[in-house]
Amino acid sequence: MIQVGLIGYGYWGPNLVRNFFEAPDCQVAVVSDLRPDRLARAAARYPSIRTTVNHRELIDDPGVDLVVIATPVSTHFDLAMQALRAGKHVLLEKPLAANSEQGEQLIEEAERRGLTLMVDHTFVYTSAVGKIRELVAAGALGDVYYYDSVRVNLGLFQHDVNVIWDLAVHDLAILDYVVDARPIAVSATGISNVPGKPENIAYVTLFFAENVIAHLHLNWLSPVKIRKTLIGGSQKMIVYDDLEATEKVKVYDKGITVTNNLESFYQMLIGYRTGDMWAPNLPASEALQSEVQHLLHCIEHQQKPTTDGEAGLRVVRVLEAASQSMKERGRPVELTGAKGAAVWSRS
Amino acid sequence: MIQVGLIGYGYWGPNLVRNFFEAPDCQVAVVSDLRPDRLARAAARYPSIRTTVNHRELIDDPGVDLVVIATPVSTHFDLAMQALRAGKHVLLEKPLAANSEQGEQLIEEAERRGLTLMVDHTFVYTSAVGKIRELVAAGALGDVYYYDSVRVNLGLFQHDVNVIWDLAVHDLAILDYVVDARPIAVSATGISNVPGKPENIAYVTLFFAENVIAHLHLNWLSPVKIRKTLIGGSQKMIVYDDLEATEKVKVYDKGITVTNNLESFYQMLIGYRTGDMWAPNLPASEALQSEVQHLLHCIEHQQKPTTDGEAGLRVVRVLEAASQSMKERGRPVELTGAKGAAVWSRS
Amino acid sequence: MIQVGLIGYGYWGPNLVRNFFEAPDCQVAVVSDLRPDRLARAAARYPSIRTTVNHRELIDDPGVDLVVIATPVSTHFDLAMQALRAGKHVLLEKPLAANSEQGEQLIEEAERRGLTLMVDHTFVYTSAVGKIRELVAAGALGDVYYYDSVRVNLGLFQHDVNVIWDLAVHDLAILDYVVDARPIAVSATGISNVPGKPENIAYVTLFFAENVIAHLHLNWLSPVKIRKTLIGGSQKMIVYDDLEATEKVKVYDKGITVTNNLESFYQMLIGYRTGDMWAPNLPASEALQSEVQHLLHCIEHQQKPTTDGEAGLRVVRVLEAASQSMKERGRPVELTGAKGAAVWSRS
Amino acid sequence: MIQVGLIGYGYWGPNLVRNFFEAPDCQVAVVSDLRPDRLARAAARYPSIRTTVNHRELIDDPGVDLVVIATPVSTHFDLAMQALRAGKHVLLEKPLAANSEQGEQLIEEAERRGLTLMVDHTFVYTSAVGKIRELVAAGALGDVYYYDSVRVNLGLFQHDVNVIWDLAVHDLAILDYVVDARPIAVSATGISNVPGKPENIAYVTLFFAENVIAHLHLNWLSPVKIRKTLIGGSQKMIVYDDLEATEKVKVYDKGITVTNNLESFYQMLIGYRTGDMWAPNLPASEALQSEVQHLLHCIEHQQKPTTDGEAGLRVVRVLEAASQSMKERGRPVELTGAKGAAVWSRS
Repeated sequence: MIQVGLIGYGYWGPNLVRNFFEAPDCQVAVVSDLRPDRLARAAARYPSIRTTVNHRELIDDPGVDLVVIATPVSTHFDLAMQALRAGKHVLLEKPLAANSEQGEQLIEEAERRGLTLMVDHTFVYTSAVGKIRELVAAGALGDVYYYDSVRVNLGLFQHDVNVIWDLAVHDLAILDYVVDARPIAVSATGISNVPGKPENIAYVTLFFAENVIAHLHLNWLSPVKIRKTLIGGSQKMIVYDDLEATEKVKVYDKGITVTNNLESFYQMLIGYRTGDMWAPNLPASEALQSEVQHLLHCIEHQQKPTTDGEAGLRVVRVLEAASQSMKERGRPVELTGAKGAAVWSRS
Repeated sequence: MIQVGLIGYGYWGPNLVRNFFEAPDCQVAVVSDLRPDRLARAAARYPSIRTTVNHRELIDDPGVDLVVIATPVSTHFDLAMQALRAGKHVLLEKPLAANSEQGEQLIEEAERRGLTLMVDHTFVYTSAVGKIRELVAAGALGDVYYYDSVRVNLGLFQHDVNVIWDLAVHDLAILDYVVDARPIAVSATGISNVPGKPENIAYVTLFFAENVIAHLHLNWLSPVKIRKTLIGGSQKMIVYDDLEATEKVKVYDKGITVTNNLESFYQMLIGYRTGDMWAPNLPASEALQSEVQHLLHCIEHQQKPTTDGEAGLRVVRVLEAASQSMKERGRPVELTGAKGAAVWSRS
Repeated sequence: MIQVGLIGYGYWGPNLVRNFFEAPDCQVAVVSDLRPDRLARAAARYPSIRTTVNHRELIDDPGVDLVVIATPVSTHFDLAMQALRAGKHVLLEKPLAANSEQGEQLIEEAERRGLTLMVDHTFVYTSAVGKIRELVAAGALGDVYYYDSVRVNLGLFQHDVNVIWDLAVHDLAILDYVVDARPIAVSATGISNVPGKPENIAYVTLFFAENVIAHLHLNWLSPVKIRKTLIGGSQKMIVYDDLEATEKVKVYDKGITVTNNLESFYQMLIGYRTGDMWAPNLPASEALQSEVQHLLHCIEHQQKPTTDGEAGLRVVRVLEAASQSMKERGRPVELTGAKGAAVWSRS
Repeated sequence: MIQVGLIGYGYWGPNLVRNFFEAPDCQVAVVSDLRPDRLARAAARYPSIRTTVNHRELIDDPGVDLVVIATPVSTHFDLAMQALRAGKHVLLEKPLAANSEQGEQLIEEAERRGLTLMVDHTFVYTSAVGKIRELVAAGALGDVYYYDSVRVNLGLFQHDVNVIWDLAVHDLAILDYVVDARPIAVSATGISNVPGKPENIAYVTLFFAENVIAHLHLNWLSPVKIRKTLIGGSQKMIVYDDLEATEKVKVYDKGITVTNNLESFYQMLIGYRTGDMWAPNLPASEALQSEVQHLLHCIEHQQKPTTDGEAGLRVVRVLEAASQSMKERGRPVELTGAKGAAVWSRS
């Protein structure tokens, strides 16, 4: 029976507590938050849980096995390091850390101590993204050509991070999971419409070693909510719309056929292919529940979680590079530490 | 009665002929095309029209007042220059020319001879874009924050131009018409998925002197057709979806309110504003008919058309800069010759 | 502080408990259900609540002021009557009762004892339906012409009631609230696709004294979920789509203009009017919370709730008549006891 | 080379002329209309076609083989009878005739003379309806349970026929083509919102011998245009949306599974089945062109067209019965002359 302590009962914390509460083989022992009114809410909802304004209480508690951190990203490193040093497994709200150096240190600390470090890349655990990965891995799309995502709405302006750190993290986590290749360079543009605030609208292009491109559109100031991803391949293409109630993933048997014109050495003929569309049935499970159970399983069996520290670090590296490029109006920034030789194609 | 000669009866030519045919105060006299089967089609449809494989016949015809050119962009400069030198008014299919030098020379030649030079930026003459301009000009949006357009489908691969030259031209023409400001720099990214072919997917960011950004997503290889533009302002926001049958323009009374927190000098409070949505009724007129009548009116009254050579040239300048930036993975390219001091705000 | 006891912790019961739990000025004291596993779930979630398999415990409890009944409709009459006779206020899940005689007796009993009897017509308390009523009442639609609703999905087959009793009750409650007129006759058709089971697809037409018609399409066996209502008026028309995330209510300035042709006595000219569309902003409140607070307010101030026993009875009368008509392939059945003289027009 | 004469160059006539004009193996010789301005329009568009205000000219013309009639339904019988008696093949705009007696006489006359009589049920020749028929015929849906269609918009008010005669004819033609069974009774309701005019909103239920129901919703006074049909079967279900640009037909692997509960003799268990969705690729051909070629083929090879006089008559019989039922508020009207014994199931 794994004992869980959670730090940060704000927006996402209650979801985490609820899912650990409902998971078998674990128990939520303590919740800490600096705000007493948040703790009162947790106590009313879960009388069995102990609450405290001092997070050290749960870090120092020898009964606690796993510390779940759902606080602002600027506090991730410090809190996670305290927990790891106290011998706790750690689940961190996304993104892993405020910069890649911090991410590297957390990974190193967890490895040295043989502890599980996981980042909460929730979308990776949805049935929609799972199905997309399955299709890409099976080669159903042929060679992947592009990944294009729009993630916009009238969203909460963050005070400490720009819109890339807030929203792109989802797409980067999906991208990291769905394809094997790693980006080698990034170009990003964006602006802030509120003087003195971080950028609230951003566009990020990722370049890969192979002939593949990914692009993310992120906006806190859109009149409508859009969560739509196009994935183009040589054989098939996918439209993934997270706002669709049921048909979230649609697979199109569409594309082009390239043939060499025999009569002319120079002329290439490009024809169109338009076939059926297919929307696979997706189980209506809650992603966070799958994620929690995966984490508990990994802790118990000492396995690497799908979204381990390394996955979190790869995402943070792109966030850093994109923010840098955005300051320079799109000047491309190379990504180091990336295993860029890998290719997307699986044919 | 203005006599019209058309060069190029391919994809768009028939639409032009039909609209000049139906317009009052003008007559389509000659159609030329290098392909006899295209001419046969024109003759069968319009027995009153003369056809020829030699475009010089209509340029040398003293009875022809206006030459309409609907041929590949690489031929625009040569054909238009011939027509202008023969004293004809000229309507050029978009884009105006294959580069800005050619565009400048065409403008100069037309001005010297007192002839009308117009580029066929069709979207400018739609009731939807007209309504958007009206709203922006009236200050209904407040300060314009961003313009974001997606124009993708499984489209015809062009052999001689990249997807920016094919598709972005529409958005740049709309942008040029709707707002007063001119872009000062551009960053673009994109790739080609067919070796040896021009880029078939591209992303273009435009920077303006004021705190405004524009972004275009262009793709010939999308499984679904999308024609959607978001325009964000400080007071209101617009969603313009050209594929909607009736409600193409939706105006959202949404946004943010920024107030200074009195208690804290450093903290700014950003609140959300969510109000009604409104879709203005748009007349179901054909844009090309409005455009044709506008051109005939301009010729008769010696007025500058809305989409004159200068408008066409501004678009070509951005196309050039974007193509350049795309080759360098988004490195920003400054736009010269732009009246960048202008601002979008009209409050 | 009103003390609440709930009978029936099945599908809807937990929602009721949660909303009474969160409402000020009341306390959920007891929950009863025949199934111990349901009670265990309630106890785990709300340790402060007492649970029992014997509903008499809460009816006999002098501390309980309000009994909330969320059990199958066949048990409504008996349970509600027990509660009323014990001097409790009663909130009944929809529909009020299994037949109109039972409904009449419950109303009579509640009135004799001065107790509040309310039926849980939840949609009446949504901001969307509230806005529609407001518009109709203000005469914005002009004369109401028709009300057309589609409420279909792959829904739970009921064993004891047909699809009309399960789904039409929502539309009838909305209709009863939105318009003043009462139906004078009903024609219904439908079939059962599972031998021995109640009808799973049904169509119900309501006739009113004035030139108004209402129609409901109800189906448990639809591949897609639809919740769409059209309301046509002489001045404006409404599309109410409950599945839209934000723009649930759209008001169209569309219609016809009827003019007499002066030249011909016999000929009437009907022209079309197509104007703007407008989607009013709707607060994102939970209907059940509004309903609970309304009930508590009515109990405290001894006022009639909006959805009192009479409203529930009017709905039951139509359900009875429709079921009767459906057995006879649409033969119209007159509604007695209806105040049919009222008209929809408010101009 | 079949020579064609057309009577009635109003709304639909130009589409017919265009399609006969483009079809091989036939020639449009004459067009007649009572309105000279309509004839002028035809002459301008097709200088090769002879025009006349006197339809007898084309009926008496021995060179004309086929008379196409696109006039108001009240004139169908008289014009078609004249044409048949003059030995011409006849294509009649839908519906076939103003009543079933007229339809019977036309069929008889055509058969006696060995002439082809066809009714223009255009939707039958669309690739979408063809695909649906193919799926139903192959048993892909299992037993058909229901057919539900909504066909509404702000449409042209007809002066001489009600909305059923104008719009339901499309659905009845599709239904007649897609399924083998014939309706045995009909119940219809509807009202007129313009005093003295035919009903502008109507609901029609068709009953079949087997456990099947069909329902049509028809409305000239809807704020939005809807063309949506649900077809439910025991194995699969179809959503056919004619307004979708590409995915007009969606096939859902959804339904219920009925099993007998072993523990209880009386209780039947109904489970849900939710599988994939599939949208077959549909060729983008024009239905009218397919129809015209089918007609020309039938004339040449003396074959019965798919939409022959009998198909037209079956539709007219339902229109008559529905109009009768509508006058009596839904009282069911039995259909005679129907081969009601047939069943939908093809398993």
